[in-house]
Amino acid sequence: MVYVTRKERFNAAHRLFRPEWSDEKNLEVFGKCSNPNWHGHNYELFITVKGQPDAITGFVMDLKRLSDIVNERVIDQLDHRNINLEVDFMKGRMASTEVLAVAIWEQIEESVKAEGCLLHSVKLYETENNFVEYFGK
Amino acid sequence: MVYVTRKERFNAAHRLFRPEWSDEKNLEVFGKCSNPNWHGHNYELFITVKGQPDAITGFVMDLKRLSDIVNERVIDQLDHRNINLEVDFMKGRMASTEVLAVAIWEQIEESVKAEGCLLHSVKLYETENNFVEYFGK
Amino acid sequence: MVYVTRKERFNAAHRLFRPEWSDEKNLEVFGKCSNPNWHGHNYELFITVKGQPDAITGFVMDLKRLSDIVNERVIDQLDHRNINLEVDFMKGRMASTEVLAVAIWEQIEESVKAEGCLLHSVKLYETENNFVEYFGK
Amino acid sequence: MVYVTRKERFNAAHRLFRPEWSDEKNLEVFGKCSNPNWHGHNYELFITVKGQPDAITGFVMDLKRLSDIVNERVIDQLDHRNINLEVDFMKGRMASTEVLAVAIWEQIEESVKAEGCLLHSVKLYETENNFVEYFGK
Amino acid sequence: MVYVTRKERFNAAHRLFRPEWSDEKNLEVFGKCSNPNWHGHNYELFITVKGQPDAITGFVMDLKRLSDIVNERVIDQLDHRNINLEVDFMKGRMASTEVLAVAIWEQIEESVKAEGCLLHSVKLYETENNFVEYFGK
Amino acid sequence: MVYVTRKERFNAAHRLFRPEWSDEKNLEVFGKCSNPNWHGHNYELFITVKGQPDAITGFVMDLKRLSDIVNERVIDQLDHRNINLEVDFMKGRMASTEVLAVAIWEQIEESVKAEGCLLHSVKLYETENNFVEYFGK
Repeated sequence: MVYVTRKERFNAAHRLFRPEWSDEKNLEVFGKCSNPNWHGHNYELFITVKGQPDAITGFVMDLKRLSDIVNERVIDQLDHRNINLEVDFMKGRMASTEVLAVAIWEQIEESVKAEGCLLHSVKLYETENNFVEYFGK
Repeated sequence: MVYVTRKERFNAAHRLFRPEWSDEKNLEVFGKCSNPNWHGHNYELFITVKGQPDAITGFVMDLKRLSDIVNERVIDQLDHRNINLEVDFMKGRMASTEVLAVAIWEQIEESVKAEGCLLHSVKLYETENNFVEYFGK
Repeated sequence: MVYVTRKERFNAAHRLFRPEWSDEKNLEVFGKCSNPNWHGHNYELFITVKGQPDAITGFVMDLKRLSDIVNERVIDQLDHRNINLEVDFMKGRMASTEVLAVAIWEQIEESVKAEGCLLHSVKLYETENNFVEYFGK
Repeated sequence: MVYVTRKERFNAAHRLFRPEWSDEKNLEVFGKCSNPNWHGHNYELFITVKGQPDAITGFVMDLKRLSDIVNERVIDQLDHRNINLEVDFMKGRMASTEVLAVAIWEQIEESVKAEGCLLHSVKLYETENNFVEYFGK
Repeated sequence: MVYVTRKERFNAAHRLFRPEWSDEKNLEVFGKCSNPNWHGHNYELFITVKGQPDAITGFVMDLKRLSDIVNERVIDQLDHRNINLEVDFMKGRMASTEVLAVAIWEQIEESVKAEGCLLHSVKLYETENNFVEYFGK
Repeated sequence: MVYVTRKERFNAAHRLFRPEWSDEKNLEVFGKCSNPNWHGHNYELFITVKGQPDAITGFVMDLKRLSDIVNERVIDQLDHRNINLEVDFMKGRMASTEVLAVAIWEQIEESVKAEGCLLHSVKLYETENNFVEYFGK
């Protein structure tokens, strides 16, 4: 089994808040991340797939194909968008890095499997100091 | 003359647009950066000052003091904020990296001079691929 | 299960040596790392915790809280210190990156558990070329 | 068990192609990576070994020794070379990052074991966006 | 005057040699960089232009337009190519980083001027340890 | 004129203090950087030289030669050393990054000139957030 990783990037706005809470309660729990006027990040996304290298091509998966899947199903929907307002697969979910990483997994798991590989992990950097990893259920 | 640089960071939301233009016109000129629902970045800011190292301390300027100035006058007003809506020194100005770098210069030039140094440059990264430098008039 | 990582930094002095050995023996085994006058590093520390994202906040653990724990129990005791002479939890232990990573794990394991999470790993960079990971016993 | 990683680098030329295929077929499958006149990369290699820290030295393995092994058996044969034409342990194999990572594992596994450690992983970056990991059979 | 920089990348093969010299002489002067079977790099290119920010857009130059120019006139000709054999604007010139940086300047100077800006510098990284800057004549 | 830069690294211990001052006074002025038991850094050093590329080799200066000069005259004296106690060219001088950058300039200026180039700048990173540049008198 060999593991192959592709890095992609997106820039997006978000905020952390519960709509049923007051601004004060949101500020208390989420701090400045709850700013009602939004803030944003340069997110960095690492998608890792695993499988046997193909005997002919030497590839676990064509990284051009993996990049296309991630761009179509994830980046095009997140880049230069507002994660809370504009991203279908995040509707009704907290816009935390943890929840976003799980949602990204769900967006691409089947497409990777259709290529004959297994999705191994989604790693998502919000800042250089904070990142999240998800390996599936 | 010795040049000393301090790096700081802030995460903010913004959009590029002219309020007097239609959404279509804004999209045509500014592309996805004009998204009305905002997007955001992890900005990286490099402030360079210049002067003679002090004979006693060996410092051009105490970097703790420089960091305090930049945090008070720049970072505290930009971090986790919406640059278009919430930053006094950007009111009525385009939220482009170029204009923001010039505005940051204006915010700190006098405070640096009051410490006996000269401000040399403001370097501002919007993404790993795009950055702006300003050296004053 | 989702994994969340926080990066922290500290600058410290250390040396590798056995007090019962001669300088020559120490030099032979530890090379220039045994210099009796010390040397130092900009250490980079990655603490990873794991758990279920909270249904309300979307957090595995509030990263502000994790950062506070790591700063109180680890960084404040190591930053701008001499690891061999001044750090209580390293008394009587080799100041190698391996031993330091294990000691950092012991310093924070209980505090992380008290927050309802599990400590997953301690990753410690001594230089850009050398790093150590510890996942507990 | 503690995991220790050493980073090394090499610059090499390669191409992806099947000699039994036409240039057109190679271009179709491998894209610009099949250019008959070669292209190249600054590869970054991370070798991770695992074991118990020695009670005397605090080392899992002397990183100087690990670096010597990797340089003798891997870097000296790859650096400033053509991976397809000049590297004995890649003869008759696809010069993909996946296959190269597996071949590097085979080159050093025994030497690491002879030092009393276990080889844990080979991580190989071809570009900042693409990397491969291998953990053995 | 504000300075704006765009980063681009290309992966290429090259060698340093004088065709009129023997392999021995080339090896003596250029070391392993003269390997007749080529080697390669992940080059990183920083193009800096300068001008007044436009009063309407806030841009010194639309970075999308700058990126298009650099890609058309530089990257498309260098990426996944052999610099000695396949790049028209390097024909008959040494494939050193110095000469390549000057040639890249010549490739884009006029196109930048046609956009109403001045080209300020070309900065070219061959490896993380070696880079070249050119500011024009 | 083309500018060529070589990056080198060293790990060293230091402290900031005036021997004629009390510990309290040193702590007040230099903060935790005055710790009598030392601390240390992974310094990163960028040496830039300038000149005309040689018509035969395409080099401004052989970077192997530049690296040798910097290693002999600077790195070998600083790496894994105590800057205050063990470095001849820093005797009697403050171990600040500013003063160290100027001292490094003095150590290599003549050797670079002897190679037919001019030394352009010394850039010295103490941490990822703090660096100093010196361009000579």
